Amino acid sequence: MATTDTLIQNILLSYETLGGVNLTETDTFPNKEDVASILLDIECLIFPGFKTSQQMDRQSLNYLTGERVHRIGSALTKEATKAILYDCKKKKKDPVKCYEKAEKIVIALLDAIPHIRKVLIGDAEAAFEGDPAARSIEEVILSYPGLEAIITYRIAHFLFEKDLPLIPRIMSEYIHGKTGIDIHPGAQIGERFFIDHGTGVVIGETTVIGKNVKLYQGVTLGALSVCKGLCGKKRHPTIQDNVTIYANATILGGETVIGEGQTIGGNSWIIKSVKPKKVAK
Amino acid sequence: MATTDTLIQNILLSYETLGGVNLTETDTFPNKEDVASILLDIECLIFPGFKTSQQMDRQSLNYLTGERVHRIGSALTKEATKAILYDCKKKKKDPVKCYEKAEKIVIALLDAIPHIRKVLIGDAEAAFEGDPAARSIEEVILSYPGLEAIITYRIAHFLFEKDLPLIPRIMSEYIHGKTGIDIHPGAQIGERFFIDHGTGVVIGETTVIGKNVKLYQGVTLGALSVCKGLCGKKRHPTIQDNVTIYANATILGGETVIGEGQTIGGNSWIIKSVKPKKVAK
Amino acid sequence: MATTDTLIQNILLSYETLGGVNLTETDTFPNKEDVASILLDIECLIFPGFKTSQQMDRQSLNYLTGERVHRIGSALTKEATKAILYDCKKKKKDPVKCYEKAEKIVIALLDAIPHIRKVLIGDAEAAFEGDPAARSIEEVILSYPGLEAIITYRIAHFLFEKDLPLIPRIMSEYIHGKTGIDIHPGAQIGERFFIDHGTGVVIGETTVIGKNVKLYQGVTLGALSVCKGLCGKKRHPTIQDNVTIYANATILGGETVIGEGQTIGGNSWIIKSVKPKKVAK
Amino acid sequence: MATTDTLIQNILLSYETLGGVNLTETDTFPNKEDVASILLDIECLIFPGFKTSQQMDRQSLNYLTGERVHRIGSALTKEATKAILYDCKKKKKDPVKCYEKAEKIVIALLDAIPHIRKVLIGDAEAAFEGDPAARSIEEVILSYPGLEAIITYRIAHFLFEKDLPLIPRIMSEYIHGKTGIDIHPGAQIGERFFIDHGTGVVIGETTVIGKNVKLYQGVTLGALSVCKGLCGKKRHPTIQDNVTIYANATILGGETVIGEGQTIGGNSWIIKSVKPKKVAK
Amino acid sequence: MATTDTLIQNILLSYETLGGVNLTETDTFPNKEDVASILLDIECLIFPGFKTSQQMDRQSLNYLTGERVHRIGSALTKEATKAILYDCKKKKKDPVKCYEKAEKIVIALLDAIPHIRKVLIGDAEAAFEGDPAARSIEEVILSYPGLEAIITYRIAHFLFEKDLPLIPRIMSEYIHGKTGIDIHPGAQIGERFFIDHGTGVVIGETTVIGKNVKLYQGVTLGALSVCKGLCGKKRHPTIQDNVTIYANATILGGETVIGEGQTIGGNSWIIKSVKPKKVAK
Amino acid sequence: MATTDTLIQNILLSYETLGGVNLTETDTFPNKEDVASILLDIECLIFPGFKTSQQMDRQSLNYLTGERVHRIGSALTKEATKAILYDCKKKKKDPVKCYEKAEKIVIALLDAIPHIRKVLIGDAEAAFEGDPAARSIEEVILSYPGLEAIITYRIAHFLFEKDLPLIPRIMSEYIHGKTGIDIHPGAQIGERFFIDHGTGVVIGETTVIGKNVKLYQGVTLGALSVCKGLCGKKRHPTIQDNVTIYANATILGGETVIGEGQTIGGNSWIIKSVKPKKVAK
Repeated sequence: MATTDTLIQNILLSYETLGGVNLTETDTFPNKEDVASILLDIECLIFPGFKTSQQMDRQSLNYLTGERVHRIGSALTKEATKAILYDCKKKKKDPVKCYEKAEKIVIALLDAIPHIRKVLIGDAEAAFEGDPAARSIEEVILSYPGLEAIITYRIAHFLFEKDLPLIPRIMSEYIHGKTGIDIHPGAQIGERFFIDHGTGVVIGETTVIGKNVKLYQGVTLGALSVCKGLCGKKRHPTIQDNVTIYANATILGGETVIGEGQTIGGNSWIIKSVKPKKVAK
Repeated sequence: MATTDTLIQNILLSYETLGGVNLTETDTFPNKEDVASILLDIECLIFPGFKTSQQMDRQSLNYLTGERVHRIGSALTKEATKAILYDCKKKKKDPVKCYEKAEKIVIALLDAIPHIRKVLIGDAEAAFEGDPAARSIEEVILSYPGLEAIITYRIAHFLFEKDLPLIPRIMSEYIHGKTGIDIHPGAQIGERFFIDHGTGVVIGETTVIGKNVKLYQGVTLGALSVCKGLCGKKRHPTIQDNVTIYANATILGGETVIGEGQTIGGNSWIIKSVKPKKVAK
Repeated sequence: MATTDTLIQNILLSYETLGGVNLTETDTFPNKEDVASILLDIECLIFPGFKTSQQMDRQSLNYLTGERVHRIGSALTKEATKAILYDCKKKKKDPVKCYEKAEKIVIALLDAIPHIRKVLIGDAEAAFEGDPAARSIEEVILSYPGLEAIITYRIAHFLFEKDLPLIPRIMSEYIHGKTGIDIHPGAQIGERFFIDHGTGVVIGETTVIGKNVKLYQGVTLGALSVCKGLCGKKRHPTIQDNVTIYANATILGGETVIGEGQTIGGNSWIIKSVKPKKVAK
Repeated sequence: MATTDTLIQNILLSYETLGGVNLTETDTFPNKEDVASILLDIECLIFPGFKTSQQMDRQSLNYLTGERVHRIGSALTKEATKAILYDCKKKKKDPVKCYEKAEKIVIALLDAIPHIRKVLIGDAEAAFEGDPAARSIEEVILSYPGLEAIITYRIAHFLFEKDLPLIPRIMSEYIHGKTGIDIHPGAQIGERFFIDHGTGVVIGETTVIGKNVKLYQGVTLGALSVCKGLCGKKRHPTIQDNVTIYANATILGGETVIGEGQTIGGNSWIIKSVKPKKVAK
Repeated sequence: MATTDTLIQNILLSYETLGGVNLTETDTFPNKEDVASILLDIECLIFPGFKTSQQMDRQSLNYLTGERVHRIGSALTKEATKAILYDCKKKKKDPVKCYEKAEKIVIALLDAIPHIRKVLIGDAEAAFEGDPAARSIEEVILSYPGLEAIITYRIAHFLFEKDLPLIPRIMSEYIHGKTGIDIHPGAQIGERFFIDHGTGVVIGETTVIGKNVKLYQGVTLGALSVCKGLCGKKRHPTIQDNVTIYANATILGGETVIGEGQTIGGNSWIIKSVKPKKVAK
Repeated sequence: MATTDTLIQNILLSYETLGGVNLTETDTFPNKEDVASILLDIECLIFPGFKTSQQMDRQSLNYLTGERVHRIGSALTKEATKAILYDCKKKKKDPVKCYEKAEKIVIALLDAIPHIRKVLIGDAEAAFEGDPAARSIEEVILSYPGLEAIITYRIAHFLFEKDLPLIPRIMSEYIHGKTGIDIHPGAQIGERFFIDHGTGVVIGETTVIGKNVKLYQGVTLGALSVCKGLCGKKRHPTIQDNVTIYANATILGGETVIGEGQTIGGNSWIIKSVKPKKVAK
């Protein structure tokens, strides 16, 4: 390749003139693969014995859990520190306070694990009850992509609420790639949430979802228009308790409320509120 | 982390009080990664020379095939035994009969390979004929996600019909994650089936599909309502021969029949039967 | 397994009678995993410092880039040669010319990198401006699946235009599996293109898209009917500048034109042209 | 290769006529790689914090240790069971008792770890004191091949004494390959044992070594003659306390005793006893 | 690092002025790791069922063997071709004949496998009979480094005799690193050869060894002086049948003959012939 | 395992009472595997094109070299910093100066590469000239374990001279394990040094070796007695120019000098000086 040197010079020149090069942050970006493996470790903490073939008994479970908590603690603190420093640098905040923050967030997450477990066991039960094809709760925990997306969401949401930058988003894009389900970590989702099949589901940042809600594949809970930095904070709809939304329904807008107990048909396009079922009758 | 011990104790306590822990079955659940690699091996048995870069000639093909059949036989028997034992234990059946069952199912699958190959070559031809962008059958076998999902379905369906627990579902969720196409192994699908693009396709457990059917991305063949253990066995639609269903169409209900030769428009929402084309004219 | 020999003989017999066996081309098919790793290398060339944790400064960037260009050059030439030879053999062309062609195409791609970078930086800016949830361009480059699909498309499209067989399609199916976004490498797509969420998007081979176009998840730009080798070349729609298409819209047909500045609602089904916004008013 | 089939037939024929084929035991041989990784795990249990880069504090050490003990327990029991069954089968013993034996041996080893640690810390101190080039005990534990061979010997010897077949030998050949030091697990070696450099050291099965003994590279403690099943049990020499043996010395014979406090010159060839230093004076 | 560019320029300059750079042969040198893995495959062909945990029965052994022969055939032909071409280029021979040669040598090796097996089974028996510590022939095949070195020697020697360049030496250095036993592939070694312990054994290129010879660790069969291209072909000793040589003995010189039935003491230094035992009496 | 908890408590107790636990330094010990991979990278810098199968031409060599220098620079600085900090901590030195030191040492090494290359090319030539079995210098560079040990020694010695702690020793033990050749990084060795076969060679810390020296396997250049911190600095022998030492010779003592041009017989035991050849005559 006679002209390779010229080709290389041109590419280097384009780095100078066009940008799009990340020289200084390489170190401070959280590592995607490490975040994914921390996520798997937290999943194993939440439902021990389902995701790895490691044998356990009641006694070894204690040590395994202790060891796992320490490993998650130190690995997540490392990634969280990088994410917070990146943010601090951008916002010119005091780096000392940044360091403290990472450790606090990680401890808070570990402290919340029993609560998160309780909610997720409810989600698994809702899936088992809601899917005639499910043969046991174990099968649901073992193989349902919808539950896997919800596990990731509940962890990422907790971290998002604590203002941890980048990592919640990396987690949600990781599970999006794996399941086709895209739940923004900012969304607020109540107990006993069930997504069946799930490919193509999108749940936007300011969505609010009540209890016992059930979504099918391809459902979008999105924004009506794009208004970067201008429009109100709530851009995505509110779904009240006991709502079922069938496949490929699209519900848009921050003021759109789907009232309690309603069923939304598949392929529907909804940009206005729907009253609760009782009221509607 | 000063309070780590307390955090760990709380998590362990939540295991006691909340459950969601799988202590005793770790060993008897089939291993997901092993099932995925058996699946790839069966794919190679069905279309030799496409999925690996292993060189072959007519002579070495014989040995390769023999060795592959033995490897699949012993690996699948191992996973199948675990799945059947798990089920036997749940249903308190005689474990001895359980053991025999695994081996019988695996031999039956290997015996059916020539037949499955015949059907899948038909599926590949249908894809080639149905997609103007396809340049050769080799390209279809090499790269079409729709065909990959159908290969997996035909294998998983065979095992499902033989009452093998868990494994058919693990196979279908594996390919769902990879292609975005979710075909329940219980569905009955005729010859020359073609799914184009495929992301978001969902085909429910009791769906019946005839010959020469063609689906586009986002098509749902689903249930109308959820009736765990109460409603009749057939919850998903019937698609007769020579039907084409365009993107994002949603067809629901166990009594819904799409008649022979019909074309269903994209984004349509269908919960009642559509008569056959000839009759409809 | 007493009858294993018979099982194997039957499978071998089915290879003879049914075909679907690839004996001779094993060597000449491009290797899927190698193509995927070349693709990642090109991504790193385009946005250095985002995809690997490799540390860099201004000086080491020069050597890293030079080394990367050489590595991509030799690896892609190897795969391209296999793809072209496969095609030459099918079409019985002169193999000597085939060899030359591979090297020419690879040099042309490397030569075009500065231009492709310019276009992709525009795409990243459009994503940042178009998504209220995006906090910085770095976050977009780091984690948006839509941008990753567009990067792959712009590389695959370049190679498709140079008549390189198989490889553009292998690239697009690779990213399809990873993001759920299926853009045919033959499509023509203008600057500042943005796909939000993206799962289920399908863009057909003869689609033409203008500047500043924005698509949401589940949008199909497809063909109206299948007419293998019979119908005109343009089977997929034209989308003019500044068009926004909401989730799950389906737009079909080679003569369908969505006029400049239009907004297409979610879940819509469009098979006729829509006039430009100004004209329409 | 026209005659490949004939080549293969001839090889298969040689399997029939010559033997040297292991059909039935494949399953019951302990796996070499698994034994090696159990050995590394036990090393980490003995000297925590030296062999892996895993971070620890006093608290996490507890959980890490508990988890490691459980992991070693279950992995070693698995390999030990295979080794014992292989032996039982050969000797036609009752398989039920065989199973019990494996678990008993593993528990005994874990119970002995504190004692083995005490002896090995003495060995490390002897190395530090005996080598002017050593800068700290940490350096010795971190990098001395002699200590690594002694750690392996002390573990393998414990298992050998408990009559565990095959595994002690697999352990000693593993470390022989890594360090060039070949200590038969049957040898009896006292406290504060030090091997400097070590390549080529051979210590035979019935060797007895006292306290504070120091060997240099290439020392052989071997048998005088070979007398399979005929000669007395003690075929290798006895080395009393406080003996130093310089490089490449060869000491042979079951009745050869090197008396307390003696120094044996390098390259010497000794087949008769050497009196203790005091007596000798 | 401010001066890195200068450092790099100086290194590049030293490439120009000093050489030691291999630009053109990178491609034609056989790959060391590939040669090592072919060697392991041949070992498995010779003693099936010992080196891998792959399960077999009499039937699957046939397919496994056939597949293994094909795999070895194609992989070794590839490496052999590179080695022969490298040699042809150096000696400016006709490349066409070079190609043919590689395939011929590989077929000859595969044809000789039954014979090589016969000899190696004799070596294993000699080890079992010669080592009182050996409990079974299986244990010898499974774990004796001496036998592993002899297996490699017998394969490498066969290829050396057929004038295959580089590869025999790469094989012997590979096993040298692993066992500490360095047998030049040119040596001629008779049946029932046994090396005990083995670390430090060196057997030179023109050594001739008879039947039933037994060596201990550290034995050197070497040259008396160095006479590059000047001295006669035979530089290393001859060891007649039934000789035993104890640890660290050094026997040098092309005219030195150790007569039949002799025993050579450990640490001895021999540069003159020793008459046969019967004659000597 | 009923008593596992007790077993674990006993092990933990032994950590408290016996020590041998490395809690705080885990982080600051250089990582052995990383050091080994840096060593391989430096080898590739010294003899490009021999150790990896990466293809190169004159142009790509420039970029490859630049990239390699940067990679080695940053990886070695990282490990060196850990080693120096560990040492600083032990000696209670100012950590700031410690940091600077690491970078200085690494730059000095990179600056010395052209000189080290020159010396090593001389070593390779000496091996080629000294071994009648060697067919080309390329073969020597490609496969001689003696040269590999010398390459490692020359790098480790440079770092040892610059007072870098731990890493030179980790490097020398790494190559000791691989080749059986144990050269202390403190030894001083002149040009054109050749070790043939090499297993069992030991060269002590204060050895001084002149030019054109040649050693065979099993040669020890060692200390006469052990005198930790008491005896003079020079504990190992001096070997003058043009000396040849045959297999398994043992030469001991800091005042022992082997005079110029001498040949030392195999298996000899030397603890007094030997006059130069000319003088001796």
